[in-house]
Amino acid sequence: MTMQRTPLLISRLLDRGAWIAPETEIVTLTSCGTHRQTYADAAGRAAALANGLRDLRIEMGDRVATFMWNGWRHLEIYQAVPSMGAVLHTLNIRLAADDLRYIINHAADRVVFVDADLAPLLERIADDLPSVEHWVVCGEPGAEPWRSSLPNAIDYESFLDGFGKTVAWPEFDENAPLGLCYTSGTTGHPKGVMYTHRSTYLHTMCMAMTDVMTLSGADCALAIVPMFHAMAWGLPYTAMMLGAKQVMPHRFMTPDKLLELIVSESVTVAAGVPTVWQDARALLEAEPDRYDLSNLDRVGCGGSAPPLSLIRWFWERYRIEMIQGWGMTEMNPLGTVSRRVSKYAHRELDEEEQFANLGKAGLLSPGLEMEIVDEEFRPLPHDGRSIGEVIVRGPWVCSEYYRDPQPDRFHDGWLVTGDVAAIDEERYLIIADRSKDLVKSGGEWISSVDLENHIVALEGVALAAVVAQPHPRWDERPVALVVLAPGAKVSEADVRRHCTVRFARWQVPDDVLVRDALPLTTTGKIDKKALRAGLAAEGYVLPELRAVPGEPDAPAGPASSA
Amino acid sequence: MTMQRTPLLISRLLDRGAWIAPETEIVTLTSCGTHRQTYADAAGRAAALANGLRDLRIEMGDRVATFMWNGWRHLEIYQAVPSMGAVLHTLNIRLAADDLRYIINHAADRVVFVDADLAPLLERIADDLPSVEHWVVCGEPGAEPWRSSLPNAIDYESFLDGFGKTVAWPEFDENAPLGLCYTSGTTGHPKGVMYTHRSTYLHTMCMAMTDVMTLSGADCALAIVPMFHAMAWGLPYTAMMLGAKQVMPHRFMTPDKLLELIVSESVTVAAGVPTVWQDARALLEAEPDRYDLSNLDRVGCGGSAPPLSLIRWFWERYRIEMIQGWGMTEMNPLGTVSRRVSKYAHRELDEEEQFANLGKAGLLSPGLEMEIVDEEFRPLPHDGRSIGEVIVRGPWVCSEYYRDPQPDRFHDGWLVTGDVAAIDEERYLIIADRSKDLVKSGGEWISSVDLENHIVALEGVALAAVVAQPHPRWDERPVALVVLAPGAKVSEADVRRHCTVRFARWQVPDDVLVRDALPLTTTGKIDKKALRAGLAAEGYVLPELRAVPGEPDAPAGPASSA
Repeated sequence: MTMQRTPLLISRLLDRGAWIAPETEIVTLTSCGTHRQTYADAAGRAAALANGLRDLRIEMGDRVATFMWNGWRHLEIYQAVPSMGAVLHTLNIRLAADDLRYIINHAADRVVFVDADLAPLLERIADDLPSVEHWVVCGEPGAEPWRSSLPNAIDYESFLDGFGKTVAWPEFDENAPLGLCYTSGTTGHPKGVMYTHRSTYLHTMCMAMTDVMTLSGADCALAIVPMFHAMAWGLPYTAMMLGAKQVMPHRFMTPDKLLELIVSESVTVAAGVPTVWQDARALLEAEPDRYDLSNLDRVGCGGSAPPLSLIRWFWERYRIEMIQGWGMTEMNPLGTVSRRVSKYAHRELDEEEQFANLGKAGLLSPGLEMEIVDEEFRPLPHDGRSIGEVIVRGPWVCSEYYRDPQPDRFHDGWLVTGDVAAIDEERYLIIADRSKDLVKSGGEWISSVDLENHIVALEGVALAAVVAQPHPRWDERPVALVVLAPGAKVSEADVRRHCTVRFARWQVPDDVLVRDALPLTTTGKIDKKALRAGLAAEGYVLPELRAVPGEPDAPAGPASSA
Repeated sequence: MTMQRTPLLISRLLDRGAWIAPETEIVTLTSCGTHRQTYADAAGRAAALANGLRDLRIEMGDRVATFMWNGWRHLEIYQAVPSMGAVLHTLNIRLAADDLRYIINHAADRVVFVDADLAPLLERIADDLPSVEHWVVCGEPGAEPWRSSLPNAIDYESFLDGFGKTVAWPEFDENAPLGLCYTSGTTGHPKGVMYTHRSTYLHTMCMAMTDVMTLSGADCALAIVPMFHAMAWGLPYTAMMLGAKQVMPHRFMTPDKLLELIVSESVTVAAGVPTVWQDARALLEAEPDRYDLSNLDRVGCGGSAPPLSLIRWFWERYRIEMIQGWGMTEMNPLGTVSRRVSKYAHRELDEEEQFANLGKAGLLSPGLEMEIVDEEFRPLPHDGRSIGEVIVRGPWVCSEYYRDPQPDRFHDGWLVTGDVAAIDEERYLIIADRSKDLVKSGGEWISSVDLENHIVALEGVALAAVVAQPHPRWDERPVALVVLAPGAKVSEADVRRHCTVRFARWQVPDDVLVRDALPLTTTGKIDKKALRAGLAAEGYVLPELRAVPGEPDAPAGPASSA
């Protein structure tokens, strides 16, 4: 042994924040202002929490769950539980009771921390959760004292009170489990991804790179992405390692609250799904002089691809760089990020050419490998046109699901992502679709994502989703569902005409349905599974199939456009 | 196993540059212009090199040495040798023949790559190097064909010609050795530090962080620090991972050549020891309009502490941030870096306060742990005043010297660095001295580094060194040796008066000796060992000890200043 074999334990990275920047604040929005504590405070409280959990006989590898908003206590748990060697299991607060029951039992969580306002969701299923020994409830500052029917529920602050504020984190194998996130698939039960100390340590280092998010200790970071969503994309851990100021919205997730928080706390970098930024844009357009965003420099956007029109709007209006990222829970989650300029050859690009970069899912993170392959796993050309399934491998990519291996999702050491994409000659990943959302029409593929990004760029369209509907001749045909901006007048014909500007006639949706809202998944993406189920439930039929003979607007298949 | 256990092999990081930025250039200065090749070219040539070495029966763990300037071939060897599983041993071209002979034999190098102009240095000792089976000579473009008496020497280009330009890098244990650097101690033989794939992989990721050097794929990086000096501080590997443009000076290391290269290649970040930047400053002051440095954004400076006056000059004149780093060969080498703003609390500092940051050795790199301790290894307060020996640990810190363990340099899993420092309340490391360079006077310590930094800030002083000289009553007293700027008139009394502005009377050097030049070490630091030896050889005696009775300017010890 010539170099120290220091195990890659997350405690070593997380302790650094309080060490170099004990005075830096962690700020959480509350109903009566903000809760503020320093990294020094947080470190003491995390130590007390670990001492308390040890007192409850929580051991190495035991699962400790959270059912919580983003907030200072959630961050304390984020630090304490893995640092002591237990496993942080972040429960998605938007899951249905059946899924929650399955997940908590599957993970065999021993302790669950729950925000008081969310406790009723768990009270309904608490009797069916035999593994849970302790419920710890987090009351909200300024709120009435909480009451809960959760058995023997204890108060977070009372729990911490009894324990000392120093701890020596134990040393153990870096491949020990650190955190558990479940991801909802299209079929079957949710599947768990068990991060290890090694995988999260490396992911945290990668997140701190200039060419990823340019995160710095001098940043003030706002994670709007929930801490139960792929560990908030790694932002809390990276910010803690760097000693950056952190701001958390707790349950106050409306655009006005978020924008006020960005302004009042001088947030420099924020991260959330595209719909968050679309809502923010709508408010900023409605009240253009109300928010001073001059400190906000970067906005991370993932979960699904942000429309280029949105990226452009934030840049042109505020010089805010919207950083598009691609990844998934199975990748901890960082896979690729796209920056305006992260290649030497791009220094001289004009603004328009830099937007082309921002419209792609991005360049591969250092440490990972990526390929696009056909159905026999043969690599496809990197020409920007060939579309194949994305496979990835590397030290923060999962190798199996937790106690539910799912070997069909893995191939020869690679994760089969379920995303379909091109890689261009510059090695940017360009996501075409989730493989299950592609529309297969007349033997050709139509990307629902491409259509959505194009439709949402039409003035007056606020949201757009494209789903496949069955067709006896072409197999499937695309149908668009749109939500209009308040007061906008956009017709079906307008949308279809707009599509013909860029797409071949056979790629244009057969139908455009205007809706008041679109269903979202628990992680804020448009829920296409729910959309498809809704159309089926209402007995939706494609226009052509209900058309009288002689209807002039019958769809053309690829053959007829050739 | 829930996450992939991808071994941390440097090949995986280095391949990324050519993958994402095949067109980006590696530019090397030559006597007849520049040699230019792309990352794509370099990857093909590195593959051919590995295939060639395999053909020479170089196996996992075999040592392959370089005796070379910074240049494109050296970078190819940097990539190929570790990626194939062999060990890159970078020989310091400025070592004396005895040390070179010792090191090559101690490492048992099987192949040595040598730049043609440096071959004569090795020819003299080649007969005493039984382990070396192959000499590969690198001719210089535009030069006469090389001739060498090295036995069976082969030409680098001819060697590469015969081999294919693709390779599949092998997979092996991440704790396998990667590279070997010898460091010259004060006593005994040079000692080898054997980096592993794991240690260098983690170091390379750390180097790419915003808060370290803000390195990006969009950078153009110039390593003036030699590639035989702690692997050029990690710059070549980090730049290759990021796909950044790289510029290398080869043997053309004069300030005018370096500045011309910075201008002509639009270098954005450069790294070198303080004397390089002091020489550059002198030239820039002499010819203020000759060089347009508008693209140069950051300058890394390590090896020894740059004077604050130099840091200030580059910032005030050009808005170039001189990033001070502290580390050592034993740390791969990154330990701390200091940036103008890398803490949230420092966003609002004024320029003057930010200079105070730049004058410190910096904040601990994520992943490492650091402490200052007394002689019994008890931690000392972090108050900016308590001075103790710096100890470090972490995954890129060495745990023993190569085949020469030196247990006294390690304590309970920590490396004992030999540097003496304070840590202030903001957790900045402030190096006081090498422990062997401290001046012990009347039971108190005087920092030679503090005195030097203060003296060199005096107008007209170009270089300063302070060394201890024996004194019968005070044990040791400081003596300053200075080099004046061309044409400057600075007297001994001026220097001593300047010291009294900041230092107590007993800390002021007893003597100031004006010299034409100061000896430098093989890595460009002022060679205090040589200075002390020189004073001893010339029979130097402190003024007081040669003074006649009644001399009014006798030094005061700490007792008399109390």
